[in-house]
Amino acid sequence: MPVGPEFSAATQKIVDAVLFDTFGTVVDWKSGVADAVEAIAFRYGFEVDAAEFALRWRARYAPATESVRTGVREFVTLDELHRENLIATADEMGLPIDRIEPADLAWLNQAWHRLDGWPDSVAGLTELKRDFIIGPLSNGHVALLTNMAKHAGLPWDVIIGSDVTRAYKPDPNVYLGAARLLDLPPHRVMLCAAHNSDLAAAQRAGLRTAFIARPQEYGPSQRTDLHATGAWDLIARDIRDLATQLRDHRTA
Amino acid sequence: MPVGPEFSAATQKIVDAVLFDTFGTVVDWKSGVADAVEAIAFRYGFEVDAAEFALRWRARYAPATESVRTGVREFVTLDELHRENLIATADEMGLPIDRIEPADLAWLNQAWHRLDGWPDSVAGLTELKRDFIIGPLSNGHVALLTNMAKHAGLPWDVIIGSDVTRAYKPDPNVYLGAARLLDLPPHRVMLCAAHNSDLAAAQRAGLRTAFIARPQEYGPSQRTDLHATGAWDLIARDIRDLATQLRDHRTA
Repeated sequence: MPVGPEFSAATQKIVDAVLFDTFGTVVDWKSGVADAVEAIAFRYGFEVDAAEFALRWRARYAPATESVRTGVREFVTLDELHRENLIATADEMGLPIDRIEPADLAWLNQAWHRLDGWPDSVAGLTELKRDFIIGPLSNGHVALLTNMAKHAGLPWDVIIGSDVTRAYKPDPNVYLGAARLLDLPPHRVMLCAAHNSDLAAAQRAGLRTAFIARPQEYGPSQRTDLHATGAWDLIARDIRDLATQLRDHRTA
Repeated sequence: MPVGPEFSAATQKIVDAVLFDTFGTVVDWKSGVADAVEAIAFRYGFEVDAAEFALRWRARYAPATESVRTGVREFVTLDELHRENLIATADEMGLPIDRIEPADLAWLNQAWHRLDGWPDSVAGLTELKRDFIIGPLSNGHVALLTNMAKHAGLPWDVIIGSDVTRAYKPDPNVYLGAARLLDLPPHRVMLCAAHNSDLAAAQRAGLRTAFIARPQEYGPSQRTDLHATGAWDLIARDIRDLATQLRDHRTA
């Protein structure tokens, strides 16, 4: 019978847990949200540039979470922030949102729960799951991330939502809270993200970091996060490549 | 393109999420803990009745969580409670625990992270996962439950640990907190447990309930929880049977 620390093999791995930013890094929010906007427009006979609507809806995300991060307002989940931002975006683009039935409006707002993974996401995560604890480290809340995982088939081991730490990235408490929840020191946890600023905050909190470029996240006009701009531990082409690199990368 | 509430089919299901008590209901703690005790005894040349040690270690669990539930002490995780109880049990049974190396002691204490599922657990959960959100609703903390899932291959969608609600069952906040975290009304969540008292508390909190008998949980001398003693929504032989019953059970 074996005696001794169970995960003795794990001490050779660079980390024990690989956590992921989700929106943009694991799932394609732009296509998913635009599809939902288009479906609503079709049903109600609205004229709308659905892709542009998705981009503008998303643009309001950072300032909204910032208001929680800076203590201007109490923590509320992304469902609430998305709903406020949906109304503001509809207003801005002249969409008569008051004509939409409540159930359809809720369905539209929940588009953020029903996003598809990038082509490499499920395969890459499935491979990583063999050797590492995998989970989202996202500004999404537990319900949103759980629904998203069911929809997209993301095989998470654990879901770390913003409503557990009640804080939004890049608040350092989010990264440290995730490590604490897994009972791991921060340097045994890696954040993988397509956003350099997220990785910078994770690195400041003591986590390991991996960058994946998602040059299509914002569509053809994307100008930011096309390349790694920091000294990250790993840079990968996509999640499958990350899995390959982590399998080969051992700290002896 | 489909428009309308996504989970329209789900409204015909009795619940959206099926959560599980873990120790005893999903995993066999007695065998797993006894094996670890035996391994340590073998390494150190101790004479000990490992099965009896496991039973006595476990017997200290309810009073320990009770002291948190009643506010006698602050919330601490099961790792801490298990460690205190391990020392007390060793004392009681004359095991010279001070001779055990710290790494081996930690390994022994983490036996509760490395328990195997009952023969039906993985297959039953895998079947339930197709139609329902599945997760543990356990007094274990997130790290323990995550390690347990990795060890036993439990395909949870989401892990709801005691360190998220910072409370121990049967505190009603545990059950209500789980529903809130999933953004579901309590009656759309089912607790499945092998313990009537756990189900009674869940039912008082408004959850649906399912009983599974685990007559071998405490070994051949078990006298409690051999049968359902309350008006539970479902009574199943095991988790596979629960999956079959839930598949057939629709609230039209």
